[in-house]
Amino acid sequence: MTVTAPQGFRSAGLAVGLKSTGKPDLALVVNDGPHPAAAAVFTGNRAQANPIIWSRRVMESGRTARAIVLNSGGANCFTGDFGFDTTRLTAEAVARELDAEAGEILVCSTGLIGTGDQAFRDKIVNGIPALAAALRADDRTAPAAILTTDSVEKTVVFAGEGWSIGAMAKGAGMLAPGLATMLVVITTDARIDADAADRALRDAVAASFNRLDSDGCMSTNDQVTLLASGASGVVPDEGRFTAALAAVCDELAAKLQADAEGASHDIDIEVRGAASVADAEEVGRSVARNNLFKAAIFGNDPNWGRVLAAIGTTGAAFDPYAVDVSFNGVRLCHAGAPDRPVAECDLTPRRTHVEIDLFAGEHAATIRTNDLTHDYVHENSAYSS
Amino acid sequence: MTVTAPQGFRSAGLAVGLKSTGKPDLALVVNDGPHPAAAAVFTGNRAQANPIIWSRRVMESGRTARAIVLNSGGANCFTGDFGFDTTRLTAEAVARELDAEAGEILVCSTGLIGTGDQAFRDKIVNGIPALAAALRADDRTAPAAILTTDSVEKTVVFAGEGWSIGAMAKGAGMLAPGLATMLVVITTDARIDADAADRALRDAVAASFNRLDSDGCMSTNDQVTLLASGASGVVPDEGRFTAALAAVCDELAAKLQADAEGASHDIDIEVRGAASVADAEEVGRSVARNNLFKAAIFGNDPNWGRVLAAIGTTGAAFDPYAVDVSFNGVRLCHAGAPDRPVAECDLTPRRTHVEIDLFAGEHAATIRTNDLTHDYVHENSAYSS
Repeated sequence: MTVTAPQGFRSAGLAVGLKSTGKPDLALVVNDGPHPAAAAVFTGNRAQANPIIWSRRVMESGRTARAIVLNSGGANCFTGDFGFDTTRLTAEAVARELDAEAGEILVCSTGLIGTGDQAFRDKIVNGIPALAAALRADDRTAPAAILTTDSVEKTVVFAGEGWSIGAMAKGAGMLAPGLATMLVVITTDARIDADAADRALRDAVAASFNRLDSDGCMSTNDQVTLLASGASGVVPDEGRFTAALAAVCDELAAKLQADAEGASHDIDIEVRGAASVADAEEVGRSVARNNLFKAAIFGNDPNWGRVLAAIGTTGAAFDPYAVDVSFNGVRLCHAGAPDRPVAECDLTPRRTHVEIDLFAGEHAATIRTNDLTHDYVHENSAYSS
Repeated sequence: MTVTAPQGFRSAGLAVGLKSTGKPDLALVVNDGPHPAAAAVFTGNRAQANPIIWSRRVMESGRTARAIVLNSGGANCFTGDFGFDTTRLTAEAVARELDAEAGEILVCSTGLIGTGDQAFRDKIVNGIPALAAALRADDRTAPAAILTTDSVEKTVVFAGEGWSIGAMAKGAGMLAPGLATMLVVITTDARIDADAADRALRDAVAASFNRLDSDGCMSTNDQVTLLASGASGVVPDEGRFTAALAAVCDELAAKLQADAEGASHDIDIEVRGAASVADAEEVGRSVARNNLFKAAIFGNDPNWGRVLAAIGTTGAAFDPYAVDVSFNGVRLCHAGAPDRPVAECDLTPRRTHVEIDLFAGEHAATIRTNDLTHDYVHENSAYSS
């Protein structure tokens, strides 16, 4: 059990034929209350898919979403008015099953941009009655139905004092903040109102998913949704709830990083000594997006020169001739000049830790990324053809 | 003849052992006047190599540089005070041969960051007398001596009315504006003063090298230098001289694009209908830096969805549901929705033309880039090891 680990939720996953492989491709999570509240964070991309446009309106008109329906096998993005109608018809079909209003139903889609024709619509809309009939409080089928190129299901459960959090995620590429390409559904039976849920979710996302930058490419379909049922009857301390939610999001971010398409290294870029958190994030992200650095890590080459060159493209406060850079604990660059021999550094483990000290202040941030590999090029040159 | 095609210049190239291959690695271009003037544009990277720091000072203290000395086989970047002294000693050695001041000698270096030890210094400084002795007005050896991973020499000659321009360039990767990773030396025998040279060079670079973005990685060592001898005695019309210089720079930019490491497509991203030139450049650059788009082109996949997703990450004025996108003349996306069938589009030719119409204004810009290939990953994961 994942999103149904907290009380007050039912879920289901089903194959309706959107994926050519015949694997599950439609999921539904229902919040049975008794005190439903919702919060959501959407992609920062200005080109937004139809389900994002729809779900934004749902959140604006009220924050008591009764359910969220998610499909893989097609992003329904750049599919015009027809595509928007598909999203609306999807919400209406779910609403009919739950005796709810369409405006209470969140919708998410993931897959290839431009996919969303009549057959796509029919498969989803016609599949919803069977999906609703399959809803269970001990469901294990929903997480698989939201995957695309993911190799594993990504779920986390957290047990608080009398309340709990459950979460499922999908994402394996096009991972860059604001948000990474991901769909995430988080449930809790804690009794919190929509404002508290919104604050907690934004804080948690800022320090987790928004610091995941696998390939610098921002998606059109990302959505992280928190649904609270209040079924535990417990009102948690807001600070502790936020901390738990942040831990859940960070764990999911690590799982997304570990499953990034074609990656052979999971790289954590820890920036310290920054004049501000924003500077630390900018420096980490600049290194994370540098193809030469990413290709070097693939080649097990601790190329600190490329790190410094990437830092130099930022607006962060720093002196290039004061910076230290370490790879996996070996300080290869001290004060902007060579330090320990490169041969002392072993980059063969998948987990890679790059530490950058700017000596410009007291702030820090860690950006998660991946290396640039032959498999990344292969998977992303062949995906749609 | 290239940089010595204009009157008043001598050049030479020589192998002094910086490259393990034994190929030429040290070049010298001398401006014999009689009315020497110089202009230079430097990398926008805040992490700057020692020769950049030196050459900036030379340009600040006077703009009548007598000569420029360039080495490949080592960037002399992040090599500390020792590296800066190497640059100074290089300039002094050239000055001795030319009976000039060290402050009149520009220096450029290219190769691996962090390279610049005692052996590196000795090879350069000890090689300069032989290099000076090899100087000729009909030299053909200089262009090869500045190459690194380049597969071909890159030169352009332009004949004006009574005056001419000659140019040589190196660059094959780490190509991103402000500037791309490149060293460029341009000579002219037109009689122009340093202010006019500076204006013309900045205009020409803005519309050429600064719109070349092969892999989004900005170098620490880039320098574009214009040396004018005045030996023709002809004072050209400034507008015509600037136009000629822009044409020379654009031709060199195309040659750099065509020789980008591991690339299998040269992609020109033409953005039209932008509210400003800055918007057009931002949109073109965002697409050019999108790894998913670049990998798709490698796979001959005209993935217009990734183009729209990249546009959506910019701050440019546009409506995602008004945009048209064509690949090689086939309009695949109209008003943010699918148009012609993808199968009509042939991406097998190396030259690839992506047209984006934002329908937001009257401005345009073309950004040159390359695809993301297995060979790019291979070359850049193995370069320093």
